[in-house]
Amino acid sequence: TLQHLFKQIFKASLELQEDDNSKALLVSRKKHPENTVVDLRGEKVGDGTQRLIMGPCAVESYEQVVTVAKAMKERGLKLLRGGAFKPRTSPYDFQGLGLEGLKILKQVADELDMAVISEIVSPQDIETAVEYVDVIQIGARNMQNFELLKAAGSVNKPVLLKRGLSATISEFIHAAEYVVAKGNSQLMLCERGIRTYEKATRNTLDISAVPILKQETHLPVLVDVTHSTGRRDLLLPTAKAALAIGADAVMAEVHPDPAVALSDSAQQMDIPQFNEFIDELQASGLYKG
Amino acid sequence: TLQHLFKQIFKASLELQEDDNSKALLVSRKKHPENTVVDLRGEKVGDGTQRLIMGPCAVESYEQVVTVAKAMKERGLKLLRGGAFKPRTSPYDFQGLGLEGLKILKQVADELDMAVISEIVSPQDIETAVEYVDVIQIGARNMQNFELLKAAGSVNKPVLLKRGLSATISEFIHAAEYVVAKGNSQLMLCERGIRTYEKATRNTLDISAVPILKQETHLPVLVDVTHSTGRRDLLLPTAKAALAIGADAVMAEVHPDPAVALSDSAQQMDIPQFNEFIDELQASGLYKG
Amino acid sequence: TLQHLFKQIFKASLELQEDDNSKALLVSRKKHPENTVVDLRGEKVGDGTQRLIMGPCAVESYEQVVTVAKAMKERGLKLLRGGAFKPRTSPYDFQGLGLEGLKILKQVADELDMAVISEIVSPQDIETAVEYVDVIQIGARNMQNFELLKAAGSVNKPVLLKRGLSATISEFIHAAEYVVAKGNSQLMLCERGIRTYEKATRNTLDISAVPILKQETHLPVLVDVTHSTGRRDLLLPTAKAALAIGADAVMAEVHPDPAVALSDSAQQMDIPQFNEFIDELQASGLYKG
Amino acid sequence: TLQHLFKQIFKASLELQEDDNSKALLVSRKKHPENTVVDLRGEKVGDGTQRLIMGPCAVESYEQVVTVAKAMKERGLKLLRGGAFKPRTSPYDFQGLGLEGLKILKQVADELDMAVISEIVSPQDIETAVEYVDVIQIGARNMQNFELLKAAGSVNKPVLLKRGLSATISEFIHAAEYVVAKGNSQLMLCERGIRTYEKATRNTLDISAVPILKQETHLPVLVDVTHSTGRRDLLLPTAKAALAIGADAVMAEVHPDPAVALSDSAQQMDIPQFNEFIDELQASGLYKG
Repeated sequence: TLQHLFKQIFKASLELQEDDNSKALLVSRKKHPENTVVDLRGEKVGDGTQRLIMGPCAVESYEQVVTVAKAMKERGLKLLRGGAFKPRTSPYDFQGLGLEGLKILKQVADELDMAVISEIVSPQDIETAVEYVDVIQIGARNMQNFELLKAAGSVNKPVLLKRGLSATISEFIHAAEYVVAKGNSQLMLCERGIRTYEKATRNTLDISAVPILKQETHLPVLVDVTHSTGRRDLLLPTAKAALAIGADAVMAEVHPDPAVALSDSAQQMDIPQFNEFIDELQASGLYKG
Repeated sequence: TLQHLFKQIFKASLELQEDDNSKALLVSRKKHPENTVVDLRGEKVGDGTQRLIMGPCAVESYEQVVTVAKAMKERGLKLLRGGAFKPRTSPYDFQGLGLEGLKILKQVADELDMAVISEIVSPQDIETAVEYVDVIQIGARNMQNFELLKAAGSVNKPVLLKRGLSATISEFIHAAEYVVAKGNSQLMLCERGIRTYEKATRNTLDISAVPILKQETHLPVLVDVTHSTGRRDLLLPTAKAALAIGADAVMAEVHPDPAVALSDSAQQMDIPQFNEFIDELQASGLYKG
Repeated sequence: TLQHLFKQIFKASLELQEDDNSKALLVSRKKHPENTVVDLRGEKVGDGTQRLIMGPCAVESYEQVVTVAKAMKERGLKLLRGGAFKPRTSPYDFQGLGLEGLKILKQVADELDMAVISEIVSPQDIETAVEYVDVIQIGARNMQNFELLKAAGSVNKPVLLKRGLSATISEFIHAAEYVVAKGNSQLMLCERGIRTYEKATRNTLDISAVPILKQETHLPVLVDVTHSTGRRDLLLPTAKAALAIGADAVMAEVHPDPAVALSDSAQQMDIPQFNEFIDELQASGLYKG
Repeated sequence: TLQHLFKQIFKASLELQEDDNSKALLVSRKKHPENTVVDLRGEKVGDGTQRLIMGPCAVESYEQVVTVAKAMKERGLKLLRGGAFKPRTSPYDFQGLGLEGLKILKQVADELDMAVISEIVSPQDIETAVEYVDVIQIGARNMQNFELLKAAGSVNKPVLLKRGLSATISEFIHAAEYVVAKGNSQLMLCERGIRTYEKATRNTLDISAVPILKQETHLPVLVDVTHSTGRRDLLLPTAKAALAIGADAVMAEVHPDPAVALSDSAQQMDIPQFNEFIDELQASGLYKG
């Protein structure tokens, strides 16, 4: 029983140390009270001005991307998203254009002076990707792909980390810590809906995660309204909620012709719908862009 | 196989009929495109002006209720909530003051010209309750207590129906149909968070349910920010999100001294916090009250 | 701050008392180490012999019930279930034959010397029901209909309580306590699947709940394989798992012609399937009946 | 509208093709009716004899592994699991011994003629790993790390794929297809509990997934009772349920001294508990090993 006692003391010490570690997380606001502001080719995220990040689900062609990008530019938007490496449930679904897609994004971004956000899915692609993108996105399915997190933490390029499909907020924060612990503090967090029993929406937007993440960390917090809801008719109302609750940016998908999109056609806006979306957000007073 | 064929046709016909039934739901906006507006002693819910419904979790005494009610009155609020019959997980928890609680609520409401919302948990109490309350609330645990729904549908008194802990939106709408099918169309729906794996909040506020319920039904839609989050620090941000997304009213709990409250002490605001809550909502431009 | 200190002490005392209450639950095995054995017209549940409870989802006619009951009797089964009051999601679905259904069940049970289990949904029906049924079933949707639990706890008749769709095991145990606290200790618990994101089955059978409930309480624990899975092809394998893990009884639904059943046609066995089910269970060595 | 019509036809054709693809999955039993049998150094999984796979959560030292392995060997067990690369929620938790751990496992396995199962977390480690392990395990967090799946599909070494924390059965099957589509058909699937609201267990063991996966695919199906429950007291009852429902193998963790284990101490058995576990399984008649 003396041995048992020592074990208990040992365990208690371990727990105490873990608790200290948790308080000492680099992403924690307790450790670093000021907001982290990420600079994307001159457009700041996290500085108090709320931003919109838009673009097609998947990059399909130069024409497709440039059409969306020009529409965005006309409305003063500068942050362009687009998928080149697409993690898909089935190996027989469209997997993205890969490096070709990144090149298209970079070409459009350079022509129109925009910043590019694109998902990377493999540690060995990170080094190549930094030449083409302004933000490395790590997707929901890879939130606990710790090798990828470490690789993204080892480069000098902003990272956008999406919450896993069934990740707790605590697990999300610890995944973020993997990136920052490697030396890269240019990190943004993105709530994108969690998996629940409710099937009226593709996922359930956990809107309360936004103020919690803002309290617990010093990082910018985004809301992806497209993947949260999976429904075009809910993009506008959920974007309003996200801005009202204090999100630093809202992400949504736009495609010149969603009906023929190679992925996620039911949830992307076309260009007129995109313009209406911006109009309505501005009219609500919630978006000052 | 001919018999099998007939069965298939029979089943297909049944499904077709069910589909028609669903389109023909009395609560459906397809059936009744205009918004239902519920009148609570002159205060309308559902008419485009967003309301606040506040008050203590449980009625404990006349002094407790009148203190909260006076603070509300000073800020122009008229809709007073308070629990007299408390459904509690354990039979040994405080179960509410019962009829005595309803009498206290009515006395305060009469003195200050306010309207009272209180939960009723048993069909046989409905008849008594209508003499004391302005709105019969049916709680989350009773959303599919169909006998209670039918009893509430049989009286001439507005009803507030809360979404069940793990009810789908479709089940919620069908539960509402039980009330209206009995003849009572003075019905309001209330999103109050759903049960998920995430434990940072007491429940997960399903904010997307608000625009879906507004589209699918013609009924006023409320958001209970207290039970959704279970955290005092999230009441203000989630109230902003609820107003931004188009909720007809927001519910939240206020107690003169939450620390000694007989139920849910961690999630109720005290009077200064209540005043700050109203100030902040008004400053945000989201609440015009 | 002295006042604050007193409040803290007051709260701590409350929590201590709640903790004591929890240890002192009447259903707790700590309080009452021996297994409760429930006697249903001579057939015991909880005595170590594993039982099967079968019958149609809903009572539709005398012929329907007697056909199933005779098939059961031939295989030595004595515990007959059948729904007379059916809680249904939509008010326009078949709601059961009500009292007429209970009379049919009693007639068949008397003719064949079987025991009847049937769900009651309203406190005021309990008194009538005890004249017709041998077990009052309280369904998943009513697990926290505390008025119904109290009414069932006030009569001298065995009760079968089903776990709520999203009830925790702790909430389930506290719901059971409502019945026993009123004086009725002839209580059985039934796991029937919980609501999760997975849609391959109607619900997710939480098989681990069986050993937990057996450890924490002294009550018999049943598994309803029909509602857990909603799939006829999973009834046999899940019944084997339930018996292997130590369930005191397994419930499953049988209908003479499932394709024309007025409810839940996809999940009921017909008579030949029922016989095969019994054959297979016996062949596995898991069912000794 | 003619254009619209063509789009609809195009989309319908796409869906039809996807449906065909789904029927044509390489892992589908429709495509390949016979059971896949995986051979692990002479011990077969999937041939109708049910196996046990055991060992420590994480490899800590040669002494630790050899102690467990000898105990296993004495009971006739040959399949040794142990973690060398540990994916951990926090970057500050013990991350495993890495390659050193694999070497320890191989040494013990060679000395005692056992087969080694160990998790690999990065595509670039696969090539090294095949020299040390007999089975490449892909963990729950990496179930949709498609680059890792493809890498594991490209080597000639059996793979054990664990179900993701909130993966549907359909997603699990499609993840398996990624491996087999690359040419490696020596694949085993492992149910290890899903994330739900219930917190009495670490995860919720979805026991029904076993017969569904056996029906839908021709692959061996395993159940990891340790991670499903996270509770030592539930390992035996859930192992019984897994064997009764037809799992091809059961996985569970054993540690010479769980109290000082560097990970998951609360859920591992010590050696005497391991022996009792085997004794009880054999006594139940469910385990013939």
